[in-house]
Amino acid sequence: MKSRKVQFGPFAYDFVSGEGSLDALPGWLADKPYDRFVLIADTGIPDWIVARTKAVFAAVAPADVLRFAPGESCKNLTTVQELAEQTIALGADRRTAIVALGGGVTGNVAGIVAGLLFRGLPLLHIPTTLMAASDSVLSLKQAVNLQAGKNLAGFYYTPQLVCVELSFLEALPAREVRAGMCELVKNLLTIKPGHIPALQPLLRTDNVYSAEELQTFIDFCIDAKTAVMRDDPYEKKEALVLEYGHTIGHALELVSDGEFVHGECVAFGMRCAARIARRIGLLAPAEVEQHDRLIDAIGVDIRPSAELLPGIEAYMKKDNKRGYRQAESGKTALILLSGLGELARDGEAYVTLVDNKLILEVIEEQLVATKSAVMGT
Amino acid sequence: MKSRKVQFGPFAYDFVSGEGSLDALPGWLADKPYDRFVLIADTGIPDWIVARTKAVFAAVAPADVLRFAPGESCKNLTTVQELAEQTIALGADRRTAIVALGGGVTGNVAGIVAGLLFRGLPLLHIPTTLMAASDSVLSLKQAVNLQAGKNLAGFYYTPQLVCVELSFLEALPAREVRAGMCELVKNLLTIKPGHIPALQPLLRTDNVYSAEELQTFIDFCIDAKTAVMRDDPYEKKEALVLEYGHTIGHALELVSDGEFVHGECVAFGMRCAARIARRIGLLAPAEVEQHDRLIDAIGVDIRPSAELLPGIEAYMKKDNKRGYRQAESGKTALILLSGLGELARDGEAYVTLVDNKLILEVIEEQLVATKSAVMGT
Repeated sequence: MKSRKVQFGPFAYDFVSGEGSLDALPGWLADKPYDRFVLIADTGIPDWIVARTKAVFAAVAPADVLRFAPGESCKNLTTVQELAEQTIALGADRRTAIVALGGGVTGNVAGIVAGLLFRGLPLLHIPTTLMAASDSVLSLKQAVNLQAGKNLAGFYYTPQLVCVELSFLEALPAREVRAGMCELVKNLLTIKPGHIPALQPLLRTDNVYSAEELQTFIDFCIDAKTAVMRDDPYEKKEALVLEYGHTIGHALELVSDGEFVHGECVAFGMRCAARIARRIGLLAPAEVEQHDRLIDAIGVDIRPSAELLPGIEAYMKKDNKRGYRQAESGKTALILLSGLGELARDGEAYVTLVDNKLILEVIEEQLVATKSAVMGT
Repeated sequence: MKSRKVQFGPFAYDFVSGEGSLDALPGWLADKPYDRFVLIADTGIPDWIVARTKAVFAAVAPADVLRFAPGESCKNLTTVQELAEQTIALGADRRTAIVALGGGVTGNVAGIVAGLLFRGLPLLHIPTTLMAASDSVLSLKQAVNLQAGKNLAGFYYTPQLVCVELSFLEALPAREVRAGMCELVKNLLTIKPGHIPALQPLLRTDNVYSAEELQTFIDFCIDAKTAVMRDDPYEKKEALVLEYGHTIGHALELVSDGEFVHGECVAFGMRCAARIARRIGLLAPAEVEQHDRLIDAIGVDIRPSAELLPGIEAYMKKDNKRGYRQAESGKTALILLSGLGELARDGEAYVTLVDNKLILEVIEEQLVATKSAVMGT
């Protein structure tokens, strides 16, 4: 078992991971004032994971489990309100800790519930996906969707603890692991390209990894994210690079209505962003190829239907990076690279304004050019 | 016109007040990056106030007004969600500022909307009640109600500016002014009793005050609240004294379903708290009488029906101060005074555990003993 301290600006929390790390929880909890636990999990989490986790907390203090319907469509303020009411009905007070048990959506929904109740209850994350363990719990950003767009309503909230039980991650289907690996690839391309030679050989299109390899990946992601968030915990400056591939990716995710998972959409967005950067002279052909090599190596090759283009365009215009700089008609603000590991700066701005026409041309090429459905699932 | 800086811990904002202070806004806005304003006001705010305020902002950048139904019953996450969707539909982005135009409920609802959208849009307060101008905008606490209780869902959020246009406050009905004066009385009793000799002679049962007097009251409240919030911006330690009278008051407010306004309920709660403190030996009879003299001086003498007692008891048990210390069966945590200007400490705790039996006895006496309905309205 490995224990680290994650530090983003003035905000810090404990991060433990390993096979059996769940069993170390009572020790960590021993000096904490929590006298009740409310676990929040969606109904997609296997019952054995819920039962195993609940048992650990119930040995310390009363522990209840609240479930909600999984998926982005339930990541909204209505779900938050229902869970908040239920949490109070269970007898929660200021000494109650909220335990987010699940993937990124659960982490965000439970994070908002914890942040709102009594203006902030302690939050413990037990991520059950690689995406959650290596990406979403390594951010203070919490958010839910509005009808008008993804992640439009939220705030920053720091957990007290992240506990990654690797035995939960080893049981994941390949597509779930791949989704997390997309963010790892993003970190390699945008923050630490020097680690490409060491990590690329570990990548597999079938996404079957040992606990040791998963631990290596998680450690790398902690290091990469800390490198940009140490001085930018609110992710408004250099850490905006973590949004790489997300403007186009989010739009695709929303319009495809669950056909593609978040990581796959981000990978698609990164392929597009690389090509856009090449078209405007920011990246060299070899750097675009490096994008493709890494994305191919984890077996992501989605082929969204060309019919989705108008929907992608509409959602992209509502992207929540709007306003990071003065809007210009006919242009969209994108996170681009000016080299591997180098966020493109446009004067003072951390986002680059690109003609919508060029963006849509590149997306359209990808809608046509991608050859096959998801490989190796 | 008067301009001050309010400083609570590391959080600071500008506070301007006076007759015509609204006209100083364009000057304040000149160096700000906001390129759109969304004003949030409930439908109870007079149209002339909305029109006058909108005109000031519209001269600077596009300004729209969103209205919502007034009252505590609409201070919830459903209203927040609707306003948030409408704000986005108006074209809001990260450069949009939210303007809370109204009383305390509007300040909180708009504060939550501003805090959530894009994880935090700039918030400007234009309070239109004395309560809002002298109390609720002098707190970083934002919250909305859950079905299970008042102010259970929220967070801390710092505005950029408070602008008190005194001509709006001069137009208020007496009962609205009195509601604000209840919190001033609370500040006199709990924080700065040394100012009682200077301020008590200004108090009037008809609550008709000049602009100069209103400015004096607001300045006093800024000083009093700063005295306890300077080192406790989250109001979890010495600033808990600001919750004086609120545990019983909130319960009465909820159970009386709009019959009494917030300030009146807090005044009722303070009369009860003083008597409870006397019964357990914390306050002397003369100190209880000083409570009554000040509350009488602003013409508050509400007589809730004894039928409300079971409801008050039920709501009191769900009060959101639960968990500031370990619960004890049959007791409720109250904010009490051990003297005028002295928060009663119970060991390390800032709240005092009191037998429910005693609390209910005292409340019941007040339900019987108070003689008449609201005076001087």
